[in-house]
Amino acid sequence: MRMYDVIRKKRDGGKLTAEEIRYFIEGYTKGEIPDYQASALTMAIFFSGMDEEETLELTLAMADSGDRLDLSSIPGIKVDKHSTGGVGDKTSLALAPLVASCGIPVAKMSGRGLGHTGGTIDKLESFPGFRVDIGTDTFLEQVRRIGISIMGQTAQLAPADKKLYALRDVTATVDNMSLIASSIMSKKLAAGADAIVLDVKTGSGAFMKTEEDSLALAREMVKIGTGAGRKMRAVVSDMDQPLGRAVGNILEVREAIDTLNGSGPADFTELVMTLGAQMLLVGDKAGSEEEAADLLREKIQNGSALHKLEEFIEAQGGDASFVADPERFPKAKIIRNVLSPADGYVERIRCDEVGMSCLTLGGGRENKDSVIDLTVGMILKKKVGDPVKKGEPIAEIHAADEAGFSAAADRFLRAYSFSEVRRDPGELIKARIEGR
Amino acid sequence: MRMYDVIRKKRDGGKLTAEEIRYFIEGYTKGEIPDYQASALTMAIFFSGMDEEETLELTLAMADSGDRLDLSSIPGIKVDKHSTGGVGDKTSLALAPLVASCGIPVAKMSGRGLGHTGGTIDKLESFPGFRVDIGTDTFLEQVRRIGISIMGQTAQLAPADKKLYALRDVTATVDNMSLIASSIMSKKLAAGADAIVLDVKTGSGAFMKTEEDSLALAREMVKIGTGAGRKMRAVVSDMDQPLGRAVGNILEVREAIDTLNGSGPADFTELVMTLGAQMLLVGDKAGSEEEAADLLREKIQNGSALHKLEEFIEAQGGDASFVADPERFPKAKIIRNVLSPADGYVERIRCDEVGMSCLTLGGGRENKDSVIDLTVGMILKKKVGDPVKKGEPIAEIHAADEAGFSAAADRFLRAYSFSEVRRDPGELIKARIEGR
Repeated sequence: MRMYDVIRKKRDGGKLTAEEIRYFIEGYTKGEIPDYQASALTMAIFFSGMDEEETLELTLAMADSGDRLDLSSIPGIKVDKHSTGGVGDKTSLALAPLVASCGIPVAKMSGRGLGHTGGTIDKLESFPGFRVDIGTDTFLEQVRRIGISIMGQTAQLAPADKKLYALRDVTATVDNMSLIASSIMSKKLAAGADAIVLDVKTGSGAFMKTEEDSLALAREMVKIGTGAGRKMRAVVSDMDQPLGRAVGNILEVREAIDTLNGSGPADFTELVMTLGAQMLLVGDKAGSEEEAADLLREKIQNGSALHKLEEFIEAQGGDASFVADPERFPKAKIIRNVLSPADGYVERIRCDEVGMSCLTLGGGRENKDSVIDLTVGMILKKKVGDPVKKGEPIAEIHAADEAGFSAAADRFLRAYSFSEVRRDPGELIKARIEGR
Repeated sequence: MRMYDVIRKKRDGGKLTAEEIRYFIEGYTKGEIPDYQASALTMAIFFSGMDEEETLELTLAMADSGDRLDLSSIPGIKVDKHSTGGVGDKTSLALAPLVASCGIPVAKMSGRGLGHTGGTIDKLESFPGFRVDIGTDTFLEQVRRIGISIMGQTAQLAPADKKLYALRDVTATVDNMSLIASSIMSKKLAAGADAIVLDVKTGSGAFMKTEEDSLALAREMVKIGTGAGRKMRAVVSDMDQPLGRAVGNILEVREAIDTLNGSGPADFTELVMTLGAQMLLVGDKAGSEEEAADLLREKIQNGSALHKLEEFIEAQGGDASFVADPERFPKAKIIRNVLSPADGYVERIRCDEVGMSCLTLGGGRENKDSVIDLTVGMILKKKVGDPVKKGEPIAEIHAADEAGFSAAADRFLRAYSFSEVRRDPGELIKARIEGR
């Protein structure tokens, strides 16, 4: 087999066989196929597309390119969740202990990544002493014992995807549904769960800007997962404005705790309940979405969900007393309001500007070596559709110093636009997709 | 400017500016833009295409990427000729001295290349003592003095094209009209002539298999040349069977000498006359094709063309006595006929099999280090449409040894197919294109 012929076939609109796709992925991972042939192929895929079978094969080949996490020692249906990401997305922090308290085993590997805030494991490190590098054996043992563990990514999951994504990123071949879907799903399949619930974001702050594209991506991923023998469900949810009110690491942890206490923001609570219900459904813990919602509500009301969070934090060496007393979390030096420059209604909140504002404060990573300030961020006091008066606080910014505050506040104000007539923010949950 | 944005623009069907094209070509030549971005761009060009302006800019940028030969010290209109290549194509050997004898200055740089026979300068080395590495000063002085010189390629002409072609060759992005045309024309523009005559081959033995594609390529190149201020003409000529009767280095030189003596094969003579007429027209040595043909015939009949070949060979240190007495050229050890296996008519002669047969004999280069046997090759005695009897010679093979003969004869026989009804080989000259 020659890579030249594989490129040419796809260029001419042909359908690649499983062997051809494996040949490419294996050769590329080993460095036997050079970047310049891989980028020619991905550009040909951009134009010629891949069908359902090709996309599944590509995903499986990438999932097989490194380690596959073996969760078989954990009894029950292991359910994983994946979000395509956005601003204020602290979903895993609340959702993982909530579904664990319902009996769904949560065995999650999580990366740090770059962005306007840290990743899930950065946020968990807000709890003093919390350890993410616990090793696979301890990780599995903990899930068997208390039903939940989240560890830093140690295993080499889908290295082909990592290499290929980096290449696509610099060759303008990211924007293809099959390539996007296979990239996400290859890592999820390698992570070993039996069932996967996807949260595909849509709107200006999401990777997919339109509902149509988000729905298409959700469907594509559900098809792949189903084809790979996983139970699949997906939700398309709004990311046209930040999720919830808190943006920033400790601030988001506190909002997650509030939510497990039953006092979280309405939109974030709705998302957690919806995704939780999907997880219970694929995990065979409920027969209907209503039944699932009842169970989730019960676990919040009777304190089980919050208790599961405490158990989880403690099991990984963290100080769980912070869960009951979040006031103990360190605070930023400067906590000051940003005031509305206008009367009327909040018309839009641009996620990218809010994210940049948080990054300006030091709440995220610009490069791999950046040190995150876990205390900084912002609490949004006005969201889309809210009435507002000139001079009224629209948000509270948590900054390390004056310079940080003013730079962040300037940037933050750019995110907001106002209108005289109220604009409806629309539904949070746009669609639900179920695997066959 | 970022290469990412250039790729993305072309991917999305945009038109690249002159600045973007120059940025790419200059950066790529210097190694500042990596192969994997260049191959992504060429694949995007394959799908999105380039318009006339973009193609011209790409050609000019590549022509400017290395040396440009300065022919301004030579008086008169310098006319270059380019053939897209084929089997039995010894055109330059006859055409260059013929048009030089009509007063067209011929200043040609030629490469060796790989293939079933050597290139023009390999063939010229059939004359003992002939030197191709004469240096640019001597080369220019010789053209001023006797009106003709052909030297090995010393200057670095269009290195961007060389680098980009090598990349396209392994990434399945060769087959795009704009890229093919700009590749050829960038070298021609860098070679410094005022006018260019193109011989675009068509048929099974040509790069372009169909008349439609060949015509499109000819038109594209004529447009580029015209856009770059050159006088342009092109001819589309048949390469569905080998050109003339001789294939192999010395055999082709001898056929070229025969043709300058007025006794060459009809098809090859027709091509030389047609291309010669185009060169005389763009070189302002004739007002019409008829007038040009008369002048060319005169130069053959009165011996001027042959004399110009002698002068040229002698000027570059070669033994010109071989021109008057071609029997002095060394011969292969074995000269033996291949016999027809069938009665009827020659239906087809596959160029690729004839070429491979010659390569089998050692008449060409398989890699850069191959040593060419100048004596080997074949003389075709039957061409398409000729009647043939079983057991009658269809060709004479010139081989160095028995093993070579039988391997080459086997291969050669594969090239021929026969029919009961005569098939017309069609016209040699399919089209003429003139620059505006």
